[in-house]
Amino acid sequence: MSLAPRGFGSDNHAGIHPQILKAMIAANQDHAPSYGIDSWSQKAQDLFKKHFGEKAQGFFVFNGTAANALALSVLIQSGEAIFCSDVSHLHVDEAAAPEFFTRGKVWALPCMDGKLSLQTLKDQWIRRGDVHFAQPQVLSLTQPTEYGTIYKISELKEICDWAKSVGLKIHIDGARLGVAAASLGVSLREITSDLGVDAISFGGTKNGMMGAEAVIVFDPAMAKRLSVMRKQSGQLPSKSRFLAAQFIAYLENDLWKEIARGSVDKARRLAAQIEEIPGVEITHPVEGNALFVRLPREKAKLLKEKFFFYVWDEKTWECRWMISWDLKDSDLEEFVQCLREVMK
Amino acid sequence: MSLAPRGFGSDNHAGIHPQILKAMIAANQDHAPSYGIDSWSQKAQDLFKKHFGEKAQGFFVFNGTAANALALSVLIQSGEAIFCSDVSHLHVDEAAAPEFFTRGKVWALPCMDGKLSLQTLKDQWIRRGDVHFAQPQVLSLTQPTEYGTIYKISELKEICDWAKSVGLKIHIDGARLGVAAASLGVSLREITSDLGVDAISFGGTKNGMMGAEAVIVFDPAMAKRLSVMRKQSGQLPSKSRFLAAQFIAYLENDLWKEIARGSVDKARRLAAQIEEIPGVEITHPVEGNALFVRLPREKAKLLKEKFFFYVWDEKTWECRWMISWDLKDSDLEEFVQCLREVMK
Amino acid sequence: MSLAPRGFGSDNHAGIHPQILKAMIAANQDHAPSYGIDSWSQKAQDLFKKHFGEKAQGFFVFNGTAANALALSVLIQSGEAIFCSDVSHLHVDEAAAPEFFTRGKVWALPCMDGKLSLQTLKDQWIRRGDVHFAQPQVLSLTQPTEYGTIYKISELKEICDWAKSVGLKIHIDGARLGVAAASLGVSLREITSDLGVDAISFGGTKNGMMGAEAVIVFDPAMAKRLSVMRKQSGQLPSKSRFLAAQFIAYLENDLWKEIARGSVDKARRLAAQIEEIPGVEITHPVEGNALFVRLPREKAKLLKEKFFFYVWDEKTWECRWMISWDLKDSDLEEFVQCLREVMK
Amino acid sequence: MSLAPRGFGSDNHAGIHPQILKAMIAANQDHAPSYGIDSWSQKAQDLFKKHFGEKAQGFFVFNGTAANALALSVLIQSGEAIFCSDVSHLHVDEAAAPEFFTRGKVWALPCMDGKLSLQTLKDQWIRRGDVHFAQPQVLSLTQPTEYGTIYKISELKEICDWAKSVGLKIHIDGARLGVAAASLGVSLREITSDLGVDAISFGGTKNGMMGAEAVIVFDPAMAKRLSVMRKQSGQLPSKSRFLAAQFIAYLENDLWKEIARGSVDKARRLAAQIEEIPGVEITHPVEGNALFVRLPREKAKLLKEKFFFYVWDEKTWECRWMISWDLKDSDLEEFVQCLREVMK
Repeated sequence: MSLAPRGFGSDNHAGIHPQILKAMIAANQDHAPSYGIDSWSQKAQDLFKKHFGEKAQGFFVFNGTAANALALSVLIQSGEAIFCSDVSHLHVDEAAAPEFFTRGKVWALPCMDGKLSLQTLKDQWIRRGDVHFAQPQVLSLTQPTEYGTIYKISELKEICDWAKSVGLKIHIDGARLGVAAASLGVSLREITSDLGVDAISFGGTKNGMMGAEAVIVFDPAMAKRLSVMRKQSGQLPSKSRFLAAQFIAYLENDLWKEIARGSVDKARRLAAQIEEIPGVEITHPVEGNALFVRLPREKAKLLKEKFFFYVWDEKTWECRWMISWDLKDSDLEEFVQCLREVMK
Repeated sequence: MSLAPRGFGSDNHAGIHPQILKAMIAANQDHAPSYGIDSWSQKAQDLFKKHFGEKAQGFFVFNGTAANALALSVLIQSGEAIFCSDVSHLHVDEAAAPEFFTRGKVWALPCMDGKLSLQTLKDQWIRRGDVHFAQPQVLSLTQPTEYGTIYKISELKEICDWAKSVGLKIHIDGARLGVAAASLGVSLREITSDLGVDAISFGGTKNGMMGAEAVIVFDPAMAKRLSVMRKQSGQLPSKSRFLAAQFIAYLENDLWKEIARGSVDKARRLAAQIEEIPGVEITHPVEGNALFVRLPREKAKLLKEKFFFYVWDEKTWECRWMISWDLKDSDLEEFVQCLREVMK
Repeated sequence: MSLAPRGFGSDNHAGIHPQILKAMIAANQDHAPSYGIDSWSQKAQDLFKKHFGEKAQGFFVFNGTAANALALSVLIQSGEAIFCSDVSHLHVDEAAAPEFFTRGKVWALPCMDGKLSLQTLKDQWIRRGDVHFAQPQVLSLTQPTEYGTIYKISELKEICDWAKSVGLKIHIDGARLGVAAASLGVSLREITSDLGVDAISFGGTKNGMMGAEAVIVFDPAMAKRLSVMRKQSGQLPSKSRFLAAQFIAYLENDLWKEIARGSVDKARRLAAQIEEIPGVEITHPVEGNALFVRLPREKAKLLKEKFFFYVWDEKTWECRWMISWDLKDSDLEEFVQCLREVMK
Repeated sequence: MSLAPRGFGSDNHAGIHPQILKAMIAANQDHAPSYGIDSWSQKAQDLFKKHFGEKAQGFFVFNGTAANALALSVLIQSGEAIFCSDVSHLHVDEAAAPEFFTRGKVWALPCMDGKLSLQTLKDQWIRRGDVHFAQPQVLSLTQPTEYGTIYKISELKEICDWAKSVGLKIHIDGARLGVAAASLGVSLREITSDLGVDAISFGGTKNGMMGAEAVIVFDPAMAKRLSVMRKQSGQLPSKSRFLAAQFIAYLENDLWKEIARGSVDKARRLAAQIEEIPGVEITHPVEGNALFVRLPREKAKLLKEKFFFYVWDEKTWECRWMISWDLKDSDLEEFVQCLREVMK
C-alpha cells in the first residue's frame, strides 16, 4: 500500500492553483521594473484596497514567518511586548522569528480551542508602566486559529474594542484568512480593517499560491517603516511581478472565496461523516479547513500508512487533518472509507 | 517613441527562462512534503554536490540580500566584522541587512574596478586582538564585482591563501557566479570550493530564475547553524519544490553555462562595438555581463528615452548597461544603432 | 509618622557595606590601566578561582540584567531557547533583555515556590530537532529563587545531571548566590561549578556592593565570546579597579558569608516571630533573605505607612519583605512591633 | 627606571576626583529608592536642566560605549544609518556596539583633524529615499574630536543648521564635553542644546568620576524610548544614588569647569614647551586635553619606559599624550625633562 498522492498533512503540501499558475506564466513576458513598481504590483495594490479598504497598503513577502515577524516589527519597538495565544504559530512554530525581528517579548496567554478570551487579556493587563516588565503594545490574533476554529465577528469586536481602548495595536495572523471569511460568510475587511485592525498577515501560500504572503497595513508611517524593515530583512522581492500575479489571480473574481469555500465545505462534510464513527473523537469545533481528532494510536498508525497527516500532540496522539484546496471529493471518500476500515 | 520591451536596467528586469518555467510547471503535481524534504529538493542537493563538491550543502533562500546576510550570519558572531569592498552590494545596497543578520560590523575597504587587492587587505589587518575594535573574521568577495569585472583564479588564490593563513573565513557573493565561471571558462567549483571558500551566495534570480538563491556551505556545523538562522529569519520556503525545480533546471545539462555565456558574449560584442564611438568611454574592463560607460549627460538622457538603464553615479553620469539573459541580438543591434544616432 | 530610614523594599535600597567602600577608597590612588588589566582586577580573578575553581574566569559587569543577559548570550545562539521558571527575573523583570542579547526564545515553565522540578523539565522536552520550534540549549536556575526559596544540593544535582545528559547548558542566576550558599552552609562552588554549571551570574550589588556583578564561566571559548559580547553591549568597565576592589573586599576573608548569614538569620528570626501573628500568612518557605506574606489589604496599607516594602501581587496583596544586609536587629524589632499593632 | 605613578595613557587611567568621591561617601546612608527615583537622582536632573536647558532629561548609564549606542538607538530605527567621522570612537573603538543597539548602519566619512566638514556631508547626501541604501537619519559629532581638536561654535552651527534643514537628527559624543566647553570658554548648552542638538553623550568617567555617563535628550517621546532601551540593554543602575552623587558633585559649583580648565591649560603648556624640541612634531592642533605627536620610534620607546602612553598609529608611530585631570605640574615638568633628554 503506497501513500496517496494527496494527503491531509498541510495546505503547504498542495501545489499551485491552476488559475494562479496561469497568471504567473502570463506575467513572464519582456522586461518589468523590479522591486514592486511593475504594473502587476500596482494592480495587486488596487485589489488590496478593494478588499481591505482604501487605506490598505500591501507588502509582498516570501513566507508566513516573515509576514508575522515583519508585521510585528512595525507594531512594537525594541523592549515592548506581544500578546498572543500560547498555541499561536508565532510563539511555538516560528523559531523565535518574532523576537529576532522585533527585539521584543512574546507574552503567550492561555486559550480555549485556540481562541483568546477578553477575560484572559484583562487578567494579564498588569504592571502597566513598569519599565522592568516588557509592556504589551500589540495583540496578535490568529484567524482561523491553530485549531481551525474561527473567532466570530462579535468575539473579534469585543476583543478589538477593548484592545483599542487600552492602546494596544491589533495584528491578525491570517495565514488562512480567506478560510475564516468564507466560513463566516463575510468579506475580508469585515473581519479585519472594519474592526480597526492595524496590520494583517494575509496568507497566500496555504491557499493555492506558489509562495507569497502580504503584510497589509493602513497607517502611512507604518507603511514607511515596513518598507525599510522588509528590505533590511531580505523580504523585498526583486521580480515582484511574479508574486503580484499570484495575488491578482487570487483576489480577482473572488477566486479566494471559491478556494476557501471548497476547503471549508469539505472539512465540514468530513467532520459530519466521521463524528459517528465510534472511537474517533473530534477535539475542537470544525469551523475552518482543519480537523483535530483523537483516535487510538494503533488505528492512527494504520491510517498514516495510506494517508499522510501530522500527529499534533506526541503525548495524546491528537492528530490534525488539514483540508488543502486541491483535495477532491474522491480523496475524502477514499479517506473516510479507509478510516472506517481501520476503526473496525 | 516608447520604451523598448527589453532594456539594460538589470538582470532582475528579465523574466523566467523558458526551461526553468517549464520545470516549475512540471513540479506542480500532487502533494509534496514541505520545507525541503521533497524529492526535487533532494535532487537539487545532488546537483549542488556535483557542481561544488561532495561536502556542499545548499540552502534555498528567497533573494540575494538574504543569501548574503544569512551566509555572513554563520561566518561571524555578534561583535565580529566583515571585510568587503566599499562598492560591494552588501555594504551599499542591502540596507544594513548584514548588520541586522550578523550583529557585526562591515569594514568596507577601497577597491579598484570593484576588486580588493591583497595589499589593501594586509594594510587593514590592524589592531588584532583589540576588543574595542571589531575583529574581521570573514572576507567577502563579490564575483563578478559590482563593476562587472572578474577576479582571475590567480587573484582569488592569492587572496584566499592569505585569508586562510590569517584565519579569515571566505564568502563569495555570487549573485551572478555563473557569469564569472563562464567568462573564465571554468567550473563553478574552481572559483569557489577548490580555493577553500567557506560559503557562497549562489545566485539564481539574476540568471533566469523566477526567484531563488542558495547559500552553499561545506562545514556541517555551519550548515546546522544556517538551518536555524534560515528559519528564524523567515527564509525557509514551505513549497520548496518550486525553488528546487528552478535550480535543477538551471544546473542540469549546464543551462547555467549556456545562459551565462550568452550574456558575456553579448556584453563583449557590445563593448567592441561601442568603444570606437567617439564620446563613449568604457570605465571598467568588460569581463562579465555589465558595461559601465560615461557619455555626455544630454546624450545619455536621449538614449534613456528609448532604452531603460541606470545612471550609476549621479555626479559623473556614469551609466550601467546590464546584459540580461534574455536580450536578443536584435536588441543589441537596435541599441547600438540608437546610441550611434544619439552620439552624432 | 514618617517612613523608617531602612525598609524592606529591596536589597538594592541598601547602601555600600563599609568594608567594601573602604576598599574602593583605597583603590583611588595614582593611575591604573583600564579595562581589566589593573592589579585589582587580577587579584579579583584569583579570588574567583579560589571560590569557583581553577577554571573560573570572571567578567565584571554593571548590573544584574546585564549579567544574566550576557551569560545567556554565550550559552545559546540566535534562534535557540532558554528554559527558566515563569517567575524568573529574566522572564518577568528584565524587559526582554535576554531576547535582546541572545536573539533567542525564553520558554518559561511552571514552578512551585519558584523552583523548577525535573518532571516539568522532562515534560517540556519536546519537538527535539524541529527547526520550527526554538530548541532549548540552556537551563537557567535562579538560586535563591524569586520567592526566596533555595534549591537543595540534591535537587540541583538531579536537575543538573539530567540537563547535562540531554545536552543542556546550565546557568545560575545568582544575584544573591551568597545567600543561598550561606543558608545551605556550603561553599559557593558546591552549588555551582562542582555540579557542572556552565555560567553564573554572581551578584554583588544586592549583597553590599555599590554596583558590580560578575559573569563567571569555565570554558575558554565561552570566555572569549563573553569578552567580545561584553564590550559590544557596553558592559566593559573602564576604571575597572573600582569594581574589582568591591569584589576583593566581598570575597576576601569571607565577607560574603558574614553578610549573607546576617540576612538569612534575620529573615528566619522574623519569620519565627510573625508566623504566630493571627492574620499573617507566610506564603513560601523562608530559606533565604526574603519573606513572602499575605495579610489583609488594609493592614498592609497601614504597615506601609511606616516601612517601605513591595506588594508582590497586585491581585492577592501578597507582599515581599526583603532583608537587606544593613538591617539592624532594632529595625526588625520595630517592624514586628508595628506589625503586631497593625494586626490587632 | 620604573613607570611613573601617573602617565599620559588615558583619562580612564586616573582615579576619582576627591570632591566626587566625597559626594559618593556622603550618599552612603540609610535606604534609598532604586532605579532613579531617589533624591540624589532628582537633584542631578535639576542640574542637567540647569546646564542643558529646561527640556533636558538625563539618563545615567555605566560607560561611554553605552551612552553613545543608547543615544543612537533612540535617534534612528532599524535599517537607518548614522553619519560620523571615520576616526570616531563609535566607528573604530566600540566593537560594533552602535550596530548592536541600533540595528542600523554606520556611514563613516573622511575628516580633517577629526572634524567633519559641511562639504563632506553634502557630498555624501546621496540616494535619498532609495530603500536599498541605508538612509542616514542622524549625524554624530565628537566634541572634542578623537584628535583632541574642537569644533568652534560657528563650525557647529553651520553643520547643525544644515543637518536640521535636511531632517538629520544631531548627536554629540561628549565623552569629554566639559573640555570642549572650557576650551571654548562657553557653557555646556552653548555647544549642544542651543544649537538644536537632539541627544548628548555627556561624559563623566574621563573627567574625574568613578564611572558614570549620562545620555541627555530633550524630546519627551525620545526620553520614553530611552527609558525602555536603557532597561532592556542592562544600563539601568539600581543603586542610582551613587551615580547621581557623582554628577551632582561634578556639575554643582562648576567643578566640571575647574577640572576641564586644568587639563586644557596643562595640554597647552605642554604643547608650547615641546613644539620647539627638534624632532618632535605635533600632528593636530592642541585645543583640548590631548596631544598627538610624532617622534622617532626609538625615542618614543625610550620615553615609554618612564611614562605610559599609547602609540596611536602602529605604522607612523604617531603617539597620543592624554592629559588627565589628576596630572600635576610636576608630572609635566618631569615628562618634558625626560623628553628633552631622550631627544638629545
